[in-house]
Amino acid sequence: MSNADIFVGEVIGTAILILFGAGVCAAVTLRYSKARDSGWVVIAFGWGFGVLAGAYTAAPLSGGHLNPAVTIGIAVDTGKWDKVWVYLLGQTAGAMLGAVLAYLVYLAQFRANVRTEGTTEGTAHEPVPTLGIFSTVPEIRSPVANLVTEIIATVALVLPVLAFGLTKGLGESGTTVLIVSLLVVGIGLSLGGPTGYAINPARDLGPRIVHTLLPIPHKGTSDWGYAWIPVVGPLTGGALAGLIYNAAF
Amino acid sequence: MSNADIFVGEVIGTAILILFGAGVCAAVTLRYSKARDSGWVVIAFGWGFGVLAGAYTAAPLSGGHLNPAVTIGIAVDTGKWDKVWVYLLGQTAGAMLGAVLAYLVYLAQFRANVRTEGTTEGTAHEPVPTLGIFSTVPEIRSPVANLVTEIIATVALVLPVLAFGLTKGLGESGTTVLIVSLLVVGIGLSLGGPTGYAINPARDLGPRIVHTLLPIPHKGTSDWGYAWIPVVGPLTGGALAGLIYNAAF
Amino acid sequence: MSNADIFVGEVIGTAILILFGAGVCAAVTLRYSKARDSGWVVIAFGWGFGVLAGAYTAAPLSGGHLNPAVTIGIAVDTGKWDKVWVYLLGQTAGAMLGAVLAYLVYLAQFRANVRTEGTTEGTAHEPVPTLGIFSTVPEIRSPVANLVTEIIATVALVLPVLAFGLTKGLGESGTTVLIVSLLVVGIGLSLGGPTGYAINPARDLGPRIVHTLLPIPHKGTSDWGYAWIPVVGPLTGGALAGLIYNAAF
Amino acid sequence: MSNADIFVGEVIGTAILILFGAGVCAAVTLRYSKARDSGWVVIAFGWGFGVLAGAYTAAPLSGGHLNPAVTIGIAVDTGKWDKVWVYLLGQTAGAMLGAVLAYLVYLAQFRANVRTEGTTEGTAHEPVPTLGIFSTVPEIRSPVANLVTEIIATVALVLPVLAFGLTKGLGESGTTVLIVSLLVVGIGLSLGGPTGYAINPARDLGPRIVHTLLPIPHKGTSDWGYAWIPVVGPLTGGALAGLIYNAAF
Repeated sequence: MSNADIFVGEVIGTAILILFGAGVCAAVTLRYSKARDSGWVVIAFGWGFGVLAGAYTAAPLSGGHLNPAVTIGIAVDTGKWDKVWVYLLGQTAGAMLGAVLAYLVYLAQFRANVRTEGTTEGTAHEPVPTLGIFSTVPEIRSPVANLVTEIIATVALVLPVLAFGLTKGLGESGTTVLIVSLLVVGIGLSLGGPTGYAINPARDLGPRIVHTLLPIPHKGTSDWGYAWIPVVGPLTGGALAGLIYNAAF
Repeated sequence: MSNADIFVGEVIGTAILILFGAGVCAAVTLRYSKARDSGWVVIAFGWGFGVLAGAYTAAPLSGGHLNPAVTIGIAVDTGKWDKVWVYLLGQTAGAMLGAVLAYLVYLAQFRANVRTEGTTEGTAHEPVPTLGIFSTVPEIRSPVANLVTEIIATVALVLPVLAFGLTKGLGESGTTVLIVSLLVVGIGLSLGGPTGYAINPARDLGPRIVHTLLPIPHKGTSDWGYAWIPVVGPLTGGALAGLIYNAAF
Repeated sequence: MSNADIFVGEVIGTAILILFGAGVCAAVTLRYSKARDSGWVVIAFGWGFGVLAGAYTAAPLSGGHLNPAVTIGIAVDTGKWDKVWVYLLGQTAGAMLGAVLAYLVYLAQFRANVRTEGTTEGTAHEPVPTLGIFSTVPEIRSPVANLVTEIIATVALVLPVLAFGLTKGLGESGTTVLIVSLLVVGIGLSLGGPTGYAINPARDLGPRIVHTLLPIPHKGTSDWGYAWIPVVGPLTGGALAGLIYNAAF
Repeated sequence: MSNADIFVGEVIGTAILILFGAGVCAAVTLRYSKARDSGWVVIAFGWGFGVLAGAYTAAPLSGGHLNPAVTIGIAVDTGKWDKVWVYLLGQTAGAMLGAVLAYLVYLAQFRANVRTEGTTEGTAHEPVPTLGIFSTVPEIRSPVANLVTEIIATVALVLPVLAFGLTKGLGESGTTVLIVSLLVVGIGLSLGGPTGYAINPARDLGPRIVHTLLPIPHKGTSDWGYAWIPVVGPLTGGALAGLIYNAAF
């Protein structure tokens, strides 16, 4: 695979992933969305099928990593590091593009995210904080606990992905991509409760940059004080998974 | 594939798709339905498994497009336009047939969709608006924003479908149809919030014609002022996906 | 396949199907169940994965029809009727066995399905009607509309199943069974609202017999006046699907 | 497969299974979890996709049993008992490791599981009992009924698993693992209501030991009086499934 193919593949694939992922968070969070308040099962399946769409589309070009933690895990396992920077660049750019696309899909909803006065029928509404649509926000802020959560959840992603034979070529087998996407659904359902499961540095950092730059009304904080945890945690977890895979298999 | 096979395949497949899709909207919307108020996750999976049923059934006859946006995307990518009119005709006829079938399945529920007086136990009910069972209705009416939503959501459908190798023959691989159907579930979950995700001109136009013609009690408006958006948006998105696929892959 | 293999396969497979199906209805309906009131999505997936479990188990022995409507549809399509009686006998016996097994799984819940007095903390409870756990109960009682619902929903099952190549041997391909099971999930989500989707005469008749015979406390009516509709409707739908398949494909 | 491979495979695979399974119970149960109160559908899919992740990862090393009931069922069917002790040892150790990992993922939530005073806005909270996150707790305590539930539910797991050809090598076919995981989702949805579906002695015993040992604040009872039922029931069910499979297929 040429550097250009890898870059284009990761940009397109990660953009699709974040379009679906940020999209489903907007769908469940924002007022005037048909999926408003439809619950955690919708969040988890939305992100998982985003992986399905993005990875399958990107597979013939780049293998469809879409996640620096996966790329690092494969590099630690195989010892091949020369293409890693192309993957990471494409993933971060793609995540930013995907966040912009999700913003455009929910443009009218973002614009309507303002304070509304109480009426004779309904009650007054405050604007919804929007960062959780773009990036992860922990339920309980505790750096050590949050980091441990992200590390373990990322090992639970990358170790199975390595065992699924991602390195042998995702593109050849639709079943493999499907299983990885359902694995991501499972991680969301089971391990997403404390931090919102970044498990992917590009998934958190790219959209956070976009959230900072976009002129969203009442967008609230972009919370850069927390931003290092969903980068360091998943990178650590990905490397750890590579080491475990290399030792055990 | 002969024109007759394509036409029959697209009629049967699109009819099944709309039977399931309009059916699940009726199931969640209408009173005296066991699935009443069962939420967005039911809507999204109902439509997705409608794609599964329809595409798999139609695949040996027509390849199972079931969607003018998919047909246009393939034509833009491959440059072959001669069969496009047969597909579009079959899809529109099939969508109309499917809407009638869904109406028949929920006939008793549609007939009971009347004003009920308050009783000593329960409260009075107004009839439910029925257009949302047949065609899409935006949450916030904003032509530009609605159009952008439909264009991006359709690219998110057709680009992966092209990458999934739809053109190589859906019928050979059950896994491909399964993945496309879960992709449609994902689009519903993630990108359906603002407009109800037409992402298919036939899916919206055919049932809207049927809604206009059928003698449904208290059916409410058929809202023809909005009808161009779920036609123009998905067609634009499908063509755009064909161009992107052709350039990047 | 010998008659003995067909009979044993259909008994085991249909018993598993009904164990899951009646089980999920008990899970959602009965008090003191962890899945109490968990909604229509649980019902639909529970039945669908019951098809997965039963059909896959039965496939090497009998092909895993588990449903007289499927057997009739295949017979109408292929013209081979000599084994049909063995299938129907096994399916009905299996459905009765499965209903008994589901009753045993929820034995403590059925025994606790009694009138409870109001306490200082909670409210009084009436016993839950139990027929809906075993057999289908329409939301609106209307013979013609109920029959139309069952016929169309069964065509929507059997026509895709025929197109999926059930007759070529379910046992060879896990993907086919998986797709059929998700199709059944889809039928439940989309078309189950009015009548509870029997779409299978054995699924309704066998458990209804068991409901009549078992000494369930406060079980309520077995409603034999409705029993002919979930038999005649699915048989008609299955035959109709066979005719359509034979004509169109 | 060497004893070392089997042991390592079962430890890793069962640890992943319990990480997801205990994780999803923590996600739904504990306050300050994003998945709080998200319902039974989340529980059932979380456990099922834990099977997907664990079995697929373990498959190349040990075949991915992850469950003494499966191992016993295969041994009863094939008559080969010499490796059984290695499987059981690995499964129990893995289940304990997985419970510790799930505890670490939800560390901040466990620490916040304390009595909170009522405020002007909210109400006072009592600590949530934590045993249900680790091991099964019946809704109605009735040894005979609970045992019958676990036996039938385990037959409904192991009989299809044997028919799915687990013994022929899970690792070769992603579809098989996927189907087994959806089967486990189905068992949870349909048969999990009364006892919480242990259907796996290691899944219940290992985490119960960990629950007894870990210093969780306000953890409540570890309920050792019930502990024999989710061991004896599944082992009986597994053996019974082996006998049925051997006789019928």
